Amino acid sequence: MNQTVFSRIINGELPCAKVYEDGHVFAFMDAGQVNPGHVLVVSKKPFETLLDADEETAAALMRAARKIALAVQDAFGPEGITILQANRPQGWQTVPHLHLHVLPRHAGDGVGLVWPRKEPGLEQLQTLAAKIKVTD
Amino acid sequence: MNQTVFSRIINGELPCAKVYEDGHVFAFMDAGQVNPGHVLVVSKKPFETLLDADEETAAALMRAARKIALAVQDAFGPEGITILQANRPQGWQTVPHLHLHVLPRHAGDGVGLVWPRKEPGLEQLQTLAAKIKVTD
Repeated sequence: MNQTVFSRIINGELPCAKVYEDGHVFAFMDAGQVNPGHVLVVSKKPFETLLDADEETAAALMRAARKIALAVQDAFGPEGITILQANRPQGWQTVPHLHLHVLPRHAGDGVGLVWPRKEPGLEQLQTLAAKIKVTD
Repeated sequence: MNQTVFSRIINGELPCAKVYEDGHVFAFMDAGQVNPGHVLVVSKKPFETLLDADEETAAALMRAARKIALAVQDAFGPEGITILQANRPQGWQTVPHLHLHVLPRHAGDGVGLVWPRKEPGLEQLQTLAAKIKVTD
Protein backbone atom coordinates (compact mmCIF):
# COMPACT_ATOMS: atom_id res chain seq x y z
CA MET A 1 0.00 0.00 0.00
CA ASN A 2 1.06 3.50 -0.88
CA GLN A 3 1.37 5.12 2.59
CA THR A 4 2.37 8.72 1.98
CA VAL A 5 2.46 11.90 4.02
CA PHE A 6 -0.92 12.65 2.44
CA SER A 7 -2.38 9.35 3.70
CA ARG A 8 -1.21 10.30 7.19
CA ILE A 9 -2.90 13.70 6.86
CA ILE A 10 -6.15 12.11 5.64
CA ASN A 11 -6.02 9.58 8.50
CA GLY A 12 -5.50 12.36 11.03
CA GLU A 13 -2.02 11.18 12.01
CA LEU A 14 -0.56 14.50 10.86
CA PRO A 15 -2.21 17.90 11.28
CA CYS A 16 -3.43 20.03 8.40
CA ALA A 17 -5.61 23.06 7.68
CA LYS A 18 -8.59 21.26 6.17
CA VAL A 19 -10.72 22.91 3.50
CA TYR A 20 -13.06 20.26 2.10
CA GLU A 21 -13.84 16.55 2.04
CA ASP A 22 -16.18 14.26 0.13
CA GLY A 23 -16.28 10.53 -0.56
CA HIS A 24 -13.36 10.61 -2.98
CA VAL A 25 -11.12 13.55 -2.05
CA PHE A 26 -9.69 15.44 0.91
CA ALA A 27 -8.50 19.05 0.53
CA PHE A 28 -6.27 21.18 2.73
CA MET A 29 -3.91 24.15 2.56
CA ASP A 30 -0.59 23.34 0.90
CA ALA A 31 2.08 23.69 3.61
CA GLY A 32 4.14 25.43 0.93
CA GLN A 33 1.83 28.31 0.00
CA VAL A 34 2.81 29.65 -3.41
CA ASN A 35 0.13 32.32 -2.98
CA PRO A 36 -2.22 32.72 0.00
CA GLY A 37 -5.20 30.41 -0.54
CA HIS A 38 -3.21 27.65 -2.27
CA VAL A 39 -5.13 24.38 -1.75
CA LEU A 40 -4.22 20.75 -2.39
CA VAL A 41 -6.95 18.30 -3.42
CA VAL A 42 -5.83 14.74 -2.66
CA SER A 43 -7.47 11.42 -3.57
CA LYS A 44 -8.61 9.42 -0.54
CA LYS A 45 -7.58 6.21 -2.28
CA PRO A 46 -3.77 6.28 -2.33
CA PHE A 47 -3.29 6.15 -6.09
CA GLU A 48 0.16 7.31 -7.09
CA THR A 49 -0.78 9.22 -10.26
CA LEU A 50 -3.74 10.07 -12.48
CA LEU A 51 -2.75 7.10 -14.65
CA ASP A 52 -3.28 4.70 -11.72
CA ALA A 53 -6.59 6.26 -10.63
CA ASP A 54 -10.08 4.99 -11.28
CA GLU A 55 -12.40 7.11 -13.37
CA GLU A 56 -14.59 8.16 -10.43
CA THR A 57 -11.60 9.56 -8.55
CA ALA A 58 -10.36 11.45 -11.59
CA ALA A 59 -13.78 13.05 -12.03
CA ALA A 60 -14.09 13.83 -8.32
CA LEU A 61 -10.75 15.67 -8.29
CA MET A 62 -11.88 18.27 -10.80
CA ARG A 63 -15.41 18.42 -9.42
CA ALA A 64 -13.89 19.37 -6.06
CA ALA A 65 -11.35 21.69 -7.70
CA ARG A 66 -14.21 23.68 -9.23
CA LYS A 67 -15.98 24.06 -5.89
CA ILE A 68 -12.78 25.02 -4.12
CA ALA A 69 -11.78 27.45 -6.90
CA LEU A 70 -15.13 29.24 -6.48
CA ALA A 71 -14.60 29.48 -2.72
CA VAL A 72 -10.98 30.63 -3.15
CA GLN A 73 -12.22 33.26 -5.61
CA ASP A 74 -14.72 34.54 -3.02
CA ALA A 75 -12.17 34.51 -0.23
CA PHE A 76 -9.09 35.98 -1.90
CA GLY A 77 -10.32 37.64 -5.13
CA PRO A 78 -7.41 36.46 -7.30
CA GLU A 79 -7.06 37.72 -10.89
CA GLY A 80 -6.57 34.15 -12.10
CA ILE A 81 -6.55 30.57 -10.88
CA THR A 82 -4.15 27.89 -12.09
CA ILE A 83 -4.93 24.20 -11.67
CA LEU A 84 -1.87 21.94 -11.77
CA GLN A 85 -1.87 18.15 -11.55
CA ALA A 86 1.60 16.63 -11.76
CA ASN A 87 2.42 12.98 -12.47
CA ARG A 88 5.79 11.42 -11.62
CA PRO A 89 8.92 13.45 -10.83
CA GLN A 90 9.50 14.33 -14.46
CA GLY A 91 5.97 15.76 -14.58
CA TRP A 92 6.71 17.85 -11.41
CA GLN A 93 5.13 15.48 -8.86
CA THR A 94 6.85 15.63 -5.46
CA VAL A 95 4.57 13.48 -3.26
CA PRO A 96 3.72 10.10 -4.88
CA HIS A 97 0.00 10.31 -4.03
CA LEU A 98 -2.48 11.64 -6.57
CA HIS A 99 -3.24 15.32 -5.99
CA LEU A 100 -4.10 18.58 -7.68
CA HIS A 101 -3.18 22.19 -6.88
CA VAL A 102 -5.74 25.01 -6.81
CA LEU A 103 -3.52 28.07 -6.99
CA PRO A 104 -4.89 31.63 -6.84
CA ARG A 105 -2.89 33.94 -9.08
CA HIS A 106 -2.05 37.64 -9.09
CA ALA A 107 -0.08 39.97 -11.33
CA GLY A 108 3.58 39.91 -10.37
CA ASP A 109 3.20 36.91 -8.06
CA GLY A 110 6.51 35.46 -9.24
CA VAL A 111 5.00 32.18 -10.43
CA GLY A 112 6.40 31.31 -13.83
CA LEU A 113 5.98 28.86 -16.66
CA VAL A 114 8.45 28.05 -19.43
CA TRP A 115 6.34 26.60 -22.22
CA PRO A 116 8.35 26.11 -25.43
CA ARG A 117 5.75 25.64 -28.19
CA LYS A 118 6.54 24.29 -31.65
CA GLU A 119 4.00 24.51 -34.48
CA PRO A 120 4.39 21.38 -36.59
CA GLY A 121 1.36 21.98 -38.83
CA LEU A 122 -1.84 20.02 -39.33
CA GLU A 123 -0.42 17.03 -41.18
CA GLN A 124 2.17 16.26 -38.51
CA LEU A 125 -0.42 16.87 -35.77
CA GLN A 126 -2.65 14.27 -37.42
CA THR A 127 0.24 11.79 -37.49
CA LEU A 128 0.71 12.33 -33.75
CA ALA A 129 -3.04 12.08 -33.07
CA ALA A 130 -3.26 8.78 -34.92
CA LYS A 131 -0.88 7.23 -32.37
CA ILE A 132 -3.17 8.11 -29.45
CA LYS A 133 -5.74 5.32 -29.03
CA VAL A 134 -8.19 6.37 -26.32
CA THR A 135 -10.21 3.46 -24.91
CA ASP A 136 -13.35 3.64 -22.78
CA MET B 1 -22.34 33.51 -26.53
CA ASN B 2 -18.66 32.80 -26.13
CA GLN B 3 -17.64 31.97 -29.75
CA THR B 4 -13.95 31.12 -29.61
CA VAL B 5 -11.45 29.47 -31.92
CA PHE B 6 -12.17 26.30 -29.93
CA SER B 7 -15.92 26.56 -30.66
CA ARG B 8 -15.05 26.79 -34.36
CA ILE B 9 -12.84 23.70 -34.09
CA ILE B 10 -15.60 21.75 -32.27
CA ASN B 11 -18.14 22.86 -34.89
CA GLY B 12 -15.86 21.73 -37.71
CA GLU B 13 -15.36 25.25 -39.08
CA LEU B 14 -11.63 24.99 -38.42
CA PRO B 15 -9.52 21.85 -38.92
CA CYS B 16 -7.83 19.99 -36.06
CA ALA B 17 -6.13 16.69 -35.31
CA LYS B 18 -8.88 15.11 -33.23
CA VAL B 19 -8.07 12.69 -30.43
CA TYR B 20 -11.28 12.07 -28.47
CA GLU B 21 -14.86 13.20 -27.99
CA ASP B 22 -17.68 12.48 -25.55
CA GLY B 23 -20.86 14.27 -24.54
CA HIS B 24 -19.05 16.98 -22.58
CA VAL B 25 -15.58 17.39 -24.08
CA PHE B 26 -13.69 17.46 -27.37
CA ALA B 27 -9.93 16.75 -27.49
CA PHE B 28 -7.35 17.46 -30.16
CA MET B 29 -3.63 18.06 -30.59
CA ASP B 30 -2.51 21.49 -29.38
CA ALA B 31 -1.33 23.39 -32.47
CA GLY B 32 1.55 24.57 -30.28
CA GLN B 33 3.09 21.24 -29.27
CA VAL B 34 5.22 21.73 -26.17
CA ASN B 35 6.19 18.05 -26.42
CA PRO B 36 4.99 15.56 -29.06
CA GLY B 37 1.66 14.15 -27.90
CA HIS B 38 0.44 17.37 -26.24
CA VAL B 39 -3.38 17.25 -26.20
CA LEU B 40 -6.00 19.89 -25.37
CA VAL B 41 -9.28 18.80 -23.76
CA VAL B 42 -11.95 21.44 -24.36
CA SER B 43 -15.47 21.73 -22.93
CA LYS B 44 -18.20 21.46 -25.58
CA LYS B 45 -20.23 24.08 -23.75
CA PRO B 46 -18.36 27.36 -24.26
CA PHE B 47 -17.68 28.16 -20.61
CA GLU B 48 -14.89 30.68 -20.24
CA THR B 49 -13.22 29.20 -17.15
CA LEU B 50 -13.56 26.40 -14.60
CA LEU B 51 -15.35 28.90 -12.34
CA ASP B 52 -18.11 29.36 -14.93
CA ALA B 53 -18.49 25.65 -15.67
CA ASP B 54 -21.16 23.29 -14.42
CA GLU B 55 -20.12 20.41 -12.20
CA GLU B 56 -20.67 17.74 -14.87
CA THR B 57 -18.32 19.49 -17.27
CA ALA B 58 -15.63 19.91 -14.61
CA ALA B 59 -15.81 16.19 -13.82
CA ALA B 60 -15.82 15.23 -17.49
CA LEU B 61 -12.65 17.22 -18.18
CA MET B 62 -10.56 15.19 -15.76
CA ARG B 63 -12.32 11.92 -16.62
CA ALA B 64 -11.26 12.50 -20.22
CA ALA B 65 -7.79 13.70 -19.19
CA ARG B 66 -7.19 10.38 -17.43
CA LYS B 67 -8.20 8.36 -20.51
CA ILE B 68 -6.11 10.52 -22.79
CA ALA B 69 -3.13 10.44 -20.42
CA LEU B 70 -3.21 6.63 -20.48
CA ALA B 71 -3.31 6.65 -24.29
CA VAL B 72 -0.53 9.25 -24.50
CA GLN B 73 1.53 7.11 -22.12
CA ASP B 74 1.08 4.09 -24.40
CA ALA B 75 1.85 6.07 -27.54
CA PHE B 76 4.83 8.16 -26.45
CA GLY B 77 6.16 6.57 -23.25
CA PRO B 78 6.84 9.85 -21.43
CA GLU B 79 8.62 9.85 -18.05
CA GLY B 80 5.92 12.13 -16.62
CA ILE B 81 2.65 13.79 -17.52
CA THR B 82 1.64 17.30 -16.45
CA ILE B 83 -2.00 18.40 -16.42
CA LEU B 84 -2.47 22.16 -16.57
CA GLN B 85 -5.80 23.99 -16.49
CA ALA B 86 -5.44 27.77 -16.64
CA ASN B 87 -8.11 30.32 -15.76
CA ARG B 88 -8.00 33.94 -16.95
CA PRO B 89 -4.86 35.59 -18.36
CA GLN B 90 -3.27 35.99 -14.93
CA GLY B 91 -3.72 32.22 -14.44
CA TRP B 92 -2.00 31.58 -17.85
CA GLN B 93 -5.18 31.14 -19.92
CA THR B 94 -4.73 32.26 -23.53
CA VAL B 95 -8.00 31.15 -25.18
CA PRO B 96 -11.10 32.20 -23.18
CA HIS B 97 -12.82 28.80 -23.50
CA LEU B 98 -12.46 26.21 -20.72
CA HIS B 99 -9.72 23.69 -21.52
CA LEU B 100 -7.04 21.52 -19.99
CA HIS B 101 -3.60 20.48 -21.24
CA VAL B 102 -2.37 16.86 -21.17
CA LEU B 103 1.37 17.31 -21.59
CA PRO B 104 3.79 14.37 -21.83
CA ARG B 105 7.06 15.19 -20.11
CA HIS B 106 10.67 14.10 -20.56
CA ALA B 107 13.97 14.86 -18.84
CA GLY B 108 15.49 17.99 -20.32
CA ASP B 109 12.37 18.92 -22.28
CA GLY B 110 12.86 22.60 -21.48
CA VAL B 111 9.47 23.00 -19.79
CA GLY B 112 9.88 24.92 -16.56
CA LEU B 113 7.97 26.01 -13.50
CA VAL B 114 8.85 28.78 -11.07
CA TRP B 115 6.99 27.90 -7.86
CA PRO B 116 8.00 30.16 -4.97
CA ARG B 117 6.77 28.37 -1.82
CA LYS B 118 6.48 30.02 1.57
CA GLU B 119 5.87 27.95 4.72
CA PRO B 120 3.65 30.01 7.02
CA GLY B 121 3.08 27.27 9.62
CA LEU B 122 -0.08 25.49 10.72
CA GLU B 123 -1.73 28.34 12.60
CA GLN B 124 -1.56 30.74 9.68
CA LEU B 125 -2.66 27.96 7.30
CA GLN B 126 -5.73 27.44 9.46
CA THR B 127 -6.51 31.16 9.33
CA LEU B 128 -6.36 30.99 5.53
CA ALA B 129 -8.45 27.79 5.43
CA ALA B 130 -11.17 29.39 7.58
CA LYS B 131 -11.75 31.99 4.84
CA ILE B 132 -12.51 29.32 2.22
CA LYS B 133 -16.20 28.43 2.42
CA VAL B 134 -16.85 25.55 0.02
CA THR B 135 -20.53 25.10 -0.82
CA ASP B 136 -22.18 22.09 -2.47
